[in-house]
Amino acid sequence: MSNQQQLTIGLFGFGVVGEGIYQVLQQTPSLNASIKTICIKHADKERNAPTALFTTDENSILDDPEINVIVELIDDADAAYRIVKKAFANKKAIVSANKKMIAEHLEELLKIQKEHAISFLYEAAVCGSIPVIRNLEEYYDNDLLSSFSGIVNGSTNYILTKMSEDKLDFATALKQAQDLGFAESNPALDIEGIDAVNKLSIVLKHAYGITCLPSELIHRGINRLHPIDSIYAGEKGLQIKLVANAKHTGEQQIAAYVLPAFVNKDSQLYHVRNEFNGTIIGSKLADEQFLYGKGAGRFPTSSAVLSDIAALRYGYKYEYKKSDNPLKYTLSYSKEIKVYLSFNAHCDINRDDFTSIEESYSNHKRHFLIAYISLDKLNKATWLNNQSISLIVFNE
Amino acid sequence: MSNQQQLTIGLFGFGVVGEGIYQVLQQTPSLNASIKTICIKHADKERNAPTALFTTDENSILDDPEINVIVELIDDADAAYRIVKKAFANKKAIVSANKKMIAEHLEELLKIQKEHAISFLYEAAVCGSIPVIRNLEEYYDNDLLSSFSGIVNGSTNYILTKMSEDKLDFATALKQAQDLGFAESNPALDIEGIDAVNKLSIVLKHAYGITCLPSELIHRGINRLHPIDSIYAGEKGLQIKLVANAKHTGEQQIAAYVLPAFVNKDSQLYHVRNEFNGTIIGSKLADEQFLYGKGAGRFPTSSAVLSDIAALRYGYKYEYKKSDNPLKYTLSYSKEIKVYLSFNAHCDINRDDFTSIEESYSNHKRHFLIAYISLDKLNKATWLNNQSISLIVFNE
Repeated sequence: MSNQQQLTIGLFGFGVVGEGIYQVLQQTPSLNASIKTICIKHADKERNAPTALFTTDENSILDDPEINVIVELIDDADAAYRIVKKAFANKKAIVSANKKMIAEHLEELLKIQKEHAISFLYEAAVCGSIPVIRNLEEYYDNDLLSSFSGIVNGSTNYILTKMSEDKLDFATALKQAQDLGFAESNPALDIEGIDAVNKLSIVLKHAYGITCLPSELIHRGINRLHPIDSIYAGEKGLQIKLVANAKHTGEQQIAAYVLPAFVNKDSQLYHVRNEFNGTIIGSKLADEQFLYGKGAGRFPTSSAVLSDIAALRYGYKYEYKKSDNPLKYTLSYSKEIKVYLSFNAHCDINRDDFTSIEESYSNHKRHFLIAYISLDKLNKATWLNNQSISLIVFNE
Repeated sequence: MSNQQQLTIGLFGFGVVGEGIYQVLQQTPSLNASIKTICIKHADKERNAPTALFTTDENSILDDPEINVIVELIDDADAAYRIVKKAFANKKAIVSANKKMIAEHLEELLKIQKEHAISFLYEAAVCGSIPVIRNLEEYYDNDLLSSFSGIVNGSTNYILTKMSEDKLDFATALKQAQDLGFAESNPALDIEGIDAVNKLSIVLKHAYGITCLPSELIHRGINRLHPIDSIYAGEKGLQIKLVANAKHTGEQQIAAYVLPAFVNKDSQLYHVRNEFNGTIIGSKLADEQFLYGKGAGRFPTSSAVLSDIAALRYGYKYEYKKSDNPLKYTLSYSKEIKVYLSFNAHCDINRDDFTSIEESYSNHKRHFLIAYISLDKLNKATWLNNQSISLIVFNE
């Protein structure tokens, strides 16, 4: 263990994950890492750590020359952004789990990271404990990835599992997910698919070298699903999952979107239940690989953060090798996808947007269409903003 | 892409994997890697590459100062050992897929690797395309691994799948596996569990820092399974799989064995079919993670070899961090496992070896026992050498 660095950590946030990290570092002296100061928002809360460790002044960490690593585990993406920028300027390595902050500022942060030659690791930001980023970055760096298809949000997967298996309604299932600590403090981030699309934009960087904002990617959450959709899925032997997709559609073109999807039982994703995450990585050589594990909760997230901390001892950095590839990948919206729609009688559906309509069915409760639509049309279809339209893609 | 090295490769072996590597490197100039010379055994075979590349003289590669990487893909473990040792001495980085050679000489090879500070990578030796070694080495290096449980031999898994799903007999299923190129050229290595235990001994090094010879580990293959065992499995809703296990049994003690196992449908391993491999990594923090992909065949193996070649551009080395851990892990044989035995009337079973016998059943064809036995007793039970005794562990 030659060139191992002693890590002196300034920790931001002492929620479930922060406390988990603190406990594990206490119990694992071999990591050569210790927390010197912890920055919190509310000084008066009771904490399971010595009072002397805590501060509410972020600069007392960021300006401390002894601290060489910032571990940022706070909810507030704007505050996280400010902290990370100052940490870069002060030459401190950074571990973050804040997918929103990372996804929204990735281009700028990577530019700063390059200038300062500082490690900036965020494995915990995508799929909790599953080493997705590390493997895309290191292991699949030479192989042509044909696709990435993943359940990347544990909270919505938990809700969908409970709705499908225990026949819970949406609100009850959401409440359970929140009580168990799987949901973001603002549940809209989960159920509207924003958390998933944040993760997808990070994945696109490491899988294909594509830099894009989450807002450039088509996404819908699970909040507009109708109970009747589950009945349809059940009859067809399908599961509804919120799936983040990136597919190589030829000539350095990538189609990318987050949509509720029908998944059949031959897919590995069908068997991903509760708060688990799973990603299928399709490659030219290795065919399909499946990585599966807990995507949410205290210890799985702690596990990923600790792996990043451990990697810092050896000065590990993401290299973003695919971004340096002379053949640039870009997002494409030309792909056609097969979708299911269910909607109320009064909904205004623009049928001209579909390339073809395969099936059309109505009963006294609800109307249904199964049709093909291009991502481009889907992206621009303002009529889809109608809250009572449910859209589910058939996952190929 | 700063410190990227130009790789000039000397390739040993031009079978399906060697040829695959050659083709991909030709098509991927961005890898900065080219094959200068290929050493083969039979000069007179037709090859899909320019004649000028080939040699039958291994020293013309090993003594070539221009060649800085040896990719060793030959079947003959003794020849591979000789080649790798000379490559180390001549300061050439090495990529190998030869699990037998690596498992049998690991201690010595790692000593030499350390002396010469040379990269020696072998991801393809365990689970083909699945990045098992890299993840054990890098990602799980700080987390306490409670268990490793994996289907690591694609050939036997293919055979067992065909026997279970298509009701093929053993010989026909084996022939199919060989025809499809999944089996080792000597099928005994697969079906007797030798290939799997070679891989397990490599896994133990990276998961727990344990150095052991495959012969120190309990192992049985699938060649003594009886057709009636499949009927029993079917009735109970179980699958028979050849599973490599390592379990933390407390106080730095690891129980490790390769045995046919009954797997129930709640286990991820149940769904691993045909030539696929899958490994469940249990950890204190991340709970269970599952890595799944193709474990055998031309392209999956090529994929792993290429990932190793790509990593060499950045001077990547395994660090064997767990071996440097002051708390040493050792193999333990005290664990008790629950086993199923089926055997013929004349078999001499020493019932005193069992801690307890749970069930005992006979019919006119076959006798059955379900019992608990310690690994120590199992290891020493010479009566188990009887070819007509089938033993299957219940995978917990």
